[in-house]
Amino acid sequence: MFQKILIANRGEIAVRIIRACRELGIRTVAVYSEADREALHTQLADEAVCIGPASSLDSYLNMERILSATIVVNADAIHPGFGFLSENSKFVDMCQKCNITFIGPSAEVINRMGNKSEARSTMEKAGVPVVPGTKEPVYGADEALEAAGKIGFPVMIKASSGGGGKGMRISESPEDFMENFNTAQMESVRSFGDDTMYIERYVRNPKHIEFQIIADKFGNVVQLGERDCSIQRHHQKVIEESPCAILTQELRRKMGDEAVRAAKAARYENAGTIEFLLDDRQNFYFIEMNTRIQVEHPVTEMVSGVDLIKEQIYIAAGLPLSVKQEDICLNGHAIECRINAENPRKNFMPCPGKLIEVHLPGGNGVRIDTAVYSGYEIPPYYDSMIAKVIVHDKTRTGAIAKMRSTLGELILEGVTTNTDFQYEILNNEDFQKGEFTTDFIEKHF
Amino acid sequence: MFQKILIANRGEIAVRIIRACRELGIRTVAVYSEADREALHTQLADEAVCIGPASSLDSYLNMERILSATIVVNADAIHPGFGFLSENSKFVDMCQKCNITFIGPSAEVINRMGNKSEARSTMEKAGVPVVPGTKEPVYGADEALEAAGKIGFPVMIKASSGGGGKGMRISESPEDFMENFNTAQMESVRSFGDDTMYIERYVRNPKHIEFQIIADKFGNVVQLGERDCSIQRHHQKVIEESPCAILTQELRRKMGDEAVRAAKAARYENAGTIEFLLDDRQNFYFIEMNTRIQVEHPVTEMVSGVDLIKEQIYIAAGLPLSVKQEDICLNGHAIECRINAENPRKNFMPCPGKLIEVHLPGGNGVRIDTAVYSGYEIPPYYDSMIAKVIVHDKTRTGAIAKMRSTLGELILEGVTTNTDFQYEILNNEDFQKGEFTTDFIEKHF
Repeated sequence: MFQKILIANRGEIAVRIIRACRELGIRTVAVYSEADREALHTQLADEAVCIGPASSLDSYLNMERILSATIVVNADAIHPGFGFLSENSKFVDMCQKCNITFIGPSAEVINRMGNKSEARSTMEKAGVPVVPGTKEPVYGADEALEAAGKIGFPVMIKASSGGGGKGMRISESPEDFMENFNTAQMESVRSFGDDTMYIERYVRNPKHIEFQIIADKFGNVVQLGERDCSIQRHHQKVIEESPCAILTQELRRKMGDEAVRAAKAARYENAGTIEFLLDDRQNFYFIEMNTRIQVEHPVTEMVSGVDLIKEQIYIAAGLPLSVKQEDICLNGHAIECRINAENPRKNFMPCPGKLIEVHLPGGNGVRIDTAVYSGYEIPPYYDSMIAKVIVHDKTRTGAIAKMRSTLGELILEGVTTNTDFQYEILNNEDFQKGEFTTDFIEKHF
Repeated sequence: MFQKILIANRGEIAVRIIRACRELGIRTVAVYSEADREALHTQLADEAVCIGPASSLDSYLNMERILSATIVVNADAIHPGFGFLSENSKFVDMCQKCNITFIGPSAEVINRMGNKSEARSTMEKAGVPVVPGTKEPVYGADEALEAAGKIGFPVMIKASSGGGGKGMRISESPEDFMENFNTAQMESVRSFGDDTMYIERYVRNPKHIEFQIIADKFGNVVQLGERDCSIQRHHQKVIEESPCAILTQELRRKMGDEAVRAAKAARYENAGTIEFLLDDRQNFYFIEMNTRIQVEHPVTEMVSGVDLIKEQIYIAAGLPLSVKQEDICLNGHAIECRINAENPRKNFMPCPGKLIEVHLPGGNGVRIDTAVYSGYEIPPYYDSMIAKVIVHDKTRTGAIAKMRSTLGELILEGVTTNTDFQYEILNNEDFQKGEFTTDFIEKHF
């Protein structure tokens, strides 16, 4: 087992990882930017190394500085958390060259799953359902239109390197196709230097359903059930839950089996997520694989009882999974609300600032993952998420009631947060019925 | 279901009950003494009624005032929590006369189990093992000595009305018997106005093992496993855990069956606890039944997934138990540390005062039940317990590691607490092996 792990991240996920290491008796090293001198992760770790100024590019994204820190403190492994360098295959390669274990999959797997066309063709070959679309990349608008006609409108025009909504356009019919294609391609060239495009059937108002999997070096793959992450704003998840309210046991089993098949096809190792779109006729399609731990992992932990961060560490250390598929028994219902320092009435504009007073609720079935405290100054340089409130109850109705009660007790004085907005979602009738798709926030707010 | 419940208690248990009610959509009424105007339970409830000055006798123990408040706010039911009026059969009678539901067992059952001789004879008749001893009360020292000789030394001399160590003495041999008997009886007369005594075999250094049971109005009784509460100081529990580290599955099943038999023999209703002494040869003896919710109930909630406060409310409302015995699957290991504002180096002297800063840890498998917050002034009039830290993990070793890590993050600045003392217990080798009995603290500290 590792003696010392460096955590190449900040905020609540860095705290989450430090806690898991402490419980395993592994020493921890925090890295921090000059803006994070007073951050909780900096204070909680056994050692802390300043790696540069506030800007992420000069600190949390600076591979050389992080590797230097790792070598200086003599850590055996790096946990990347999510975001930052967690899906950067170059960084994984550099770790390997320095003889440092990267807690995550190999560079090869990250590349395979990071490239949308390659991920898609890997899944197609394995028989995992994908959204109908072009098998080969397209470059010209005419050939793209022909392909769109065969697939059937509406279609999604997607840049192979695209992400975060960039290089993506929906085309409703041949009439608006050319203009959308050209815009998307131009965006991709400008943002990613890549004109490789593909065309897919556009799945209107799907549910975003993802399966958590864990896979070890011995070929064992276990899936830990699904998360419904359809409540999103600007492609950012806001509320996640497990299980999905409207999945039948049969469909759950079928999707779970495909998730395992997908992970095996990717020759995946460590914790990962298989994302599907689910349409209103129970068709589901693989869209992508996330090759890292995710923000919403606690809902899976609460229903499965599996500690995903510890599992990641075991796997990276060469140990087999601590659970078998037949041991997994998903209990009750868990919901996570992401609490962001932002103003939902001003297009979710981030609102950093000083937290004058923090009071965190607790009690039965309540979990708070956060790195804030009374007097903490939220720096303006990073993500606006400052806390995750996770609740667990026997039923979905019970979990919603618990979340409402818990949010009612949360005090984060000094900055504007989305807590009231979360409350409104929880009070929405469609949300309560489980009848919502990825357009929920757009439609209701 | 009830529309409105009045909580006749304060501190973390009042907060715990308010939360459960909120989740069930039941309105809550807090009662508070003048010293508790700023208390969290006073702030969290939908309504709050001041019932008198700081002294418990004039507020939380004042039956008339609490009943008046209940009638004024038009609440249907009273939850007594633990301590205060929770085991006062007179209060239960008064509730009934006012047509208010007391959330707990009937006055008759409280009396039956509250009287040690009656509890003991009820159990003996039902075939539940009890500590060998006098079947009938004794009054004179001579007849008591004769009984002690038959039972075999060492013996425990107990006042029937005794409690909290009062009216109890151990006698090692006939030589010291008379003096001890006379002292114990005098104490009982002085404290309880009762000279009824009995003599029992003294079980030296037992484990204190208790079983949580729930029982509804339809005769269903379910046991939710045991708690090892052997870590005590001055007869006050300090650390509780579930399951007990050293119980075999066979013994657990046997004791669980006896706990159910005991609850049935008492014709029990609501949540209750059957306390056993377990000696080093795996003999176990019923000692008493607690006819209320207990401080340590969260460890059972964490391993069983059953919400005991909600279950109490369902039962009192005339609903059947939400679980059957065959549904109960105890998962992992839970430990609770009671955090008291007290000084362990000064004989656990209470240390009330103002909490300048409070920082509560959180994360995976961590539950905090508390009623304190930054700036809260702990009043000197009540119990010194200010927080319960409960952790849950797959294994006992994992849970101990998690507790150590969690206590390391807890900040309660401004008053002296027993947190470091808890830490020392967790680091003790005998504790870690599960090899401890009720004399653990006396022996090691």
